[in-house]
Amino acid sequence: MSKRIAGPEIERLIQLLAKVPGLGPRSARRAALHLIRKKDQLLGPLASAMAEANEKVRVCSACGNVDTSDPCTICADARRDGATIIVVEAVGDLWALERAGAMNARYHVLGGVLSPLDGVGPDDLTIRQLVSRVAAGGVGEVILAVNATVEGQTTAHYITDQLEGLGARVTRLAHGVPVGGELDYLDDGTLAAALRSRTGM
Amino acid sequence: MSKRIAGPEIERLIQLLAKVPGLGPRSARRAALHLIRKKDQLLGPLASAMAEANEKVRVCSACGNVDTSDPCTICADARRDGATIIVVEAVGDLWALERAGAMNARYHVLGGVLSPLDGVGPDDLTIRQLVSRVAAGGVGEVILAVNATVEGQTTAHYITDQLEGLGARVTRLAHGVPVGGELDYLDDGTLAAALRSRTGM
Repeated sequence: MSKRIAGPEIERLIQLLAKVPGLGPRSARRAALHLIRKKDQLLGPLASAMAEANEKVRVCSACGNVDTSDPCTICADARRDGATIIVVEAVGDLWALERAGAMNARYHVLGGVLSPLDGVGPDDLTIRQLVSRVAAGGVGEVILAVNATVEGQTTAHYITDQLEGLGARVTRLAHGVPVGGELDYLDDGTLAAALRSRTGM
Repeated sequence: MSKRIAGPEIERLIQLLAKVPGLGPRSARRAALHLIRKKDQLLGPLASAMAEANEKVRVCSACGNVDTSDPCTICADARRDGATIIVVEAVGDLWALERAGAMNARYHVLGGVLSPLDGVGPDDLTIRQLVSRVAAGGVGEVILAVNATVEGQTTAHYITDQLEGLGARVTRLAHGVPVGGELDYLDDGTLAAALRSRTGM
């Protein structure tokens, strides 16, 4: 806005909202207006929810997840199968796997992937903590659920080496055709992997 | 999320973020994660900006705009031309016109349009306050910048009747081809209006 048309508090709210992923400068204005119109139902509650999250959120010292308690809800859940650890790059991947709801395991968040070009080495990730968790015993399987990128696969191989001799089986996610996916639109690498890993009907 | 995978504070933050226009359930999760990761740069400042806006925002008693002061920044600005009042349906329209930056006038926010089917009559809008402002004198022109919908045009005609005899010229926005618009994609009504209102080169 070229001229000042509203108080600095509203302009600041719009500027900060524009930094939220999914919102841009234009939708931030629309969002701000909607929040202001729904002051009591939305703006107030959202302000306090953010303040509360800001105050309470911490990183789980066991697995690297973010939560309002340490250990996190998942690590503290006694019904979770502690014998299986799913290793993910980031908390968003953990949330995605939980939404899929296929496993009742625990997690380990690496905090990134090995990337020499970006200066990310093993000590910048939580690989040492993972090795300690597995070495402490009771872990039967470590599932490497890293992204299917070059860096992700490099990281997976490095972790596999580090976990050798600790008695846990190390596995990775299957490659293949996405459920609901059309072959015509898939890349050659995925199609080749799906053919190699074909299973009986 | 079927199982609880994070503390109630984080789930509540996601639920509230999902109600912000432009964000849905999926992007609310991504936004929450981003906010948590950028705790100090984004989550904290946004929480306090929202709390401040929530506390200070009020409706301008003169024009119906929302701002953190009453009268609002525009009404309080002595450099604004008080002889011209632009009438809009909602605050979002006021912001849009200000972005266009074509006029240095004051505004009057109706708070909606006449809509007998939805039970919205003249007393539900700020039409009486507009008539008082014009009757108080000093207003040379009232520009009706309502939407080009049936309800908007009905409201414009009603306001024109109410302002008759008060000495102010009542005008409306021009209809025509949007700047940068292609004729091929325009509806017949707009094209006909653009032809009727053709101007010399």
